[in-house]
Amino acid sequence: MAVNLVAPKPEDLLRVKGVELGVAEAGVRKAGRKDLLVMRLADGASVAGVFTQNRFCAAPVILCRENLALGQAVRAMLVNTGNANAGTGEDGLARARRACTELAGLLGCERAQILPFSTGVIMEPLPVERIVAALPRALADCREDNWALAAEAIMTTDTVPKACSRQLSLGGKPVTVTGMAKGAGMIRPDMATMLAYVATDAAVDQAALQKMLASAAARSFNRITVDGDTSTNDSFMLIATGAAGTQTITDERHADYAALAETVAEVAEWLAQAIIRDGEGATKFITVQVEGGASEAECSKVAFAIAHSPLVKTAFFASDPNLGRLLCAIGYAGISDLDVNRVRLHLGGVSVAKDGGLDPAYREEDGQRVMKQSEITVRVELGRGSARTTVWTCDLSHDYVSINADYRS
Amino acid sequence: MAVNLVAPKPEDLLRVKGVELGVAEAGVRKAGRKDLLVMRLADGASVAGVFTQNRFCAAPVILCRENLALGQAVRAMLVNTGNANAGTGEDGLARARRACTELAGLLGCERAQILPFSTGVIMEPLPVERIVAALPRALADCREDNWALAAEAIMTTDTVPKACSRQLSLGGKPVTVTGMAKGAGMIRPDMATMLAYVATDAAVDQAALQKMLASAAARSFNRITVDGDTSTNDSFMLIATGAAGTQTITDERHADYAALAETVAEVAEWLAQAIIRDGEGATKFITVQVEGGASEAECSKVAFAIAHSPLVKTAFFASDPNLGRLLCAIGYAGISDLDVNRVRLHLGGVSVAKDGGLDPAYREEDGQRVMKQSEITVRVELGRGSARTTVWTCDLSHDYVSINADYRS
Repeated sequence: MAVNLVAPKPEDLLRVKGVELGVAEAGVRKAGRKDLLVMRLADGASVAGVFTQNRFCAAPVILCRENLALGQAVRAMLVNTGNANAGTGEDGLARARRACTELAGLLGCERAQILPFSTGVIMEPLPVERIVAALPRALADCREDNWALAAEAIMTTDTVPKACSRQLSLGGKPVTVTGMAKGAGMIRPDMATMLAYVATDAAVDQAALQKMLASAAARSFNRITVDGDTSTNDSFMLIATGAAGTQTITDERHADYAALAETVAEVAEWLAQAIIRDGEGATKFITVQVEGGASEAECSKVAFAIAHSPLVKTAFFASDPNLGRLLCAIGYAGISDLDVNRVRLHLGGVSVAKDGGLDPAYREEDGQRVMKQSEITVRVELGRGSARTTVWTCDLSHDYVSINADYRS
Repeated sequence: MAVNLVAPKPEDLLRVKGVELGVAEAGVRKAGRKDLLVMRLADGASVAGVFTQNRFCAAPVILCRENLALGQAVRAMLVNTGNANAGTGEDGLARARRACTELAGLLGCERAQILPFSTGVIMEPLPVERIVAALPRALADCREDNWALAAEAIMTTDTVPKACSRQLSLGGKPVTVTGMAKGAGMIRPDMATMLAYVATDAAVDQAALQKMLASAAARSFNRITVDGDTSTNDSFMLIATGAAGTQTITDERHADYAALAETVAEVAEWLAQAIIRDGEGATKFITVQVEGGASEAECSKVAFAIAHSPLVKTAFFASDPNLGRLLCAIGYAGISDLDVNRVRLHLGGVSVAKDGGLDPAYREEDGQRVMKQSEITVRVELGRGSARTTVWTCDLSHDYVSINADYRS
């Protein structure tokens, strides 16, 4: 029941020259679904990544960090669903290494040139032999026009595959940016989201790519929350194959940097919003805009206080304009010198609160009308400065409880 | 459906000499229930209070702070349910003042000697005329042996009234401590909980009473969470009437201070736990013990990360030992140099995780057995030092969503 989100048509997902994707059914957790993805990268591709800040990060996240630090060319990424390989200690690392070694053997490269990713249940041993057995089938399936099946293969509790493409022109040459992501619960990314992969055929060196990735994450995956839980496996990867034949972007001052960075960020933002639209149990897509702050950090505090509040989220689920809960969340967000008499609260286009209380012009039926919509914008003016931020979240429904009470069964 | 919590027997609630309680039906929001309480205090009673840190604190909280700062003897407390009088601006203050003025007139004292309290819906105007009209009936009902009805009159979404009594001996004289509290949702107190009143007939001056209150709050109401929402109206009041004829306790070094402080804290802890047992939709009572921390602050971070996690809470609701969610919450609690290989996790008496992953001796059926219990202790050893803390919370159930989706209807 995703909110205004439909599966992308395969023909709308543009291939990125130099990136081939192959899927297979490894049977990691459930039979009858593709749960393994291999992404092969052409020679010369640059790769940048940001990962979860969770201290119990997964074994594959540890290996990704190690491998990227070695600076060798990445030849393939390997993704499995159904098991997070997190909270698995040394044994988990050994199993992840084993999968990478096997894939490296099949590709004729070194283990450190493979980046592994896992998503699924935490603290259960990765059935690595099943993954190894499925690798040849995934490799045999590899092709550039396979993004739709790949986006489906990385899903867990997602109900809709999430992927989109954009095109731009750099130095007169057409360039493609295509991305996909998965994630529906345990979503409060801190430096990245569950799993997201964005690829372009532009040429960007690793350092510039990492900057581009960080700024895209800051305005996309780091601005969403479903339930406030930062996953153990969050990874957001940006690939630049250079196959479009454009000039190599080496730093932020390069003429092509801004245009490509903007397009990459747009794709990341679209994917991040898609994760919220498909948030576990979501029936509403909520945009929280906070402006007039003394700093972006304090705007974020207020926006996430609203976006995390179970009381606010259940009110959205019920379409109940119980808007005092919004004021309450603003009040406990941690701005100790907030002057509540300067705060203004708007719901959709409706002014709800000012001068420390209800706007005398507010009518319940106006609030009710907005609350019934499937996409709702909450706008808070803090009256303290000119900083602003936006966060996206969803409501908290019975289905969220059902999905997470039954997740392993 | 409170967890192992039953309404106190009226005869178990011991009167506190110098405190009379009277209830009435003012019809603030719903007909047919007592929603107004007056607590009259005898001459010479000391009163201490701690209040919400929410910047959108309620009008009555503002007046309580003002009145206590004036230092005049408190003659009565006035509590209404059904309306929080929060997010109501200047008009809310005027309405709260009007109720206090009226009660002061009836008691022949000054308005500043009345402390008002409200709880209920936020950002709706307080129907103060109905309260004023009911005051004479509440006053006529005032008597010392009325704690049971008083505990019922302050309930909102609570399903069970919460009150208890303890006795001790100070200087050979019997002393009573009786307390009551309300609260079931919007519970993540920050310096106090929704509404709690503890009274003793011991003699304690205001400064010592305030210290006693603060330390009781620190180990009771500040260690619980239902949904992480810090209310606009949290107030925890401690009253000492001196009617028992004991020596006046003037500071922490007084011979009687420690014994009385311990009993007051025990009562506060019992009430705080009762709030969790009656948490909205609660089916499980969860104790989260974190030990081996470098500081109590970092133990608190971990304990509240676990206690706030919707994923952990839905797993408890489902009796599903999906314990990776606990590791995940520990990992994102904000201890940036946490060595996950030193963390140990226990569920009930069962060792779940060590060395960064599952304890090899752990068996799913052991976890399952503990998860089915109605009272569960999670114990985390951080392996960093000797600090520790305990937090109490409940699970997240379908009923939480139902209760909060339907709250105003």
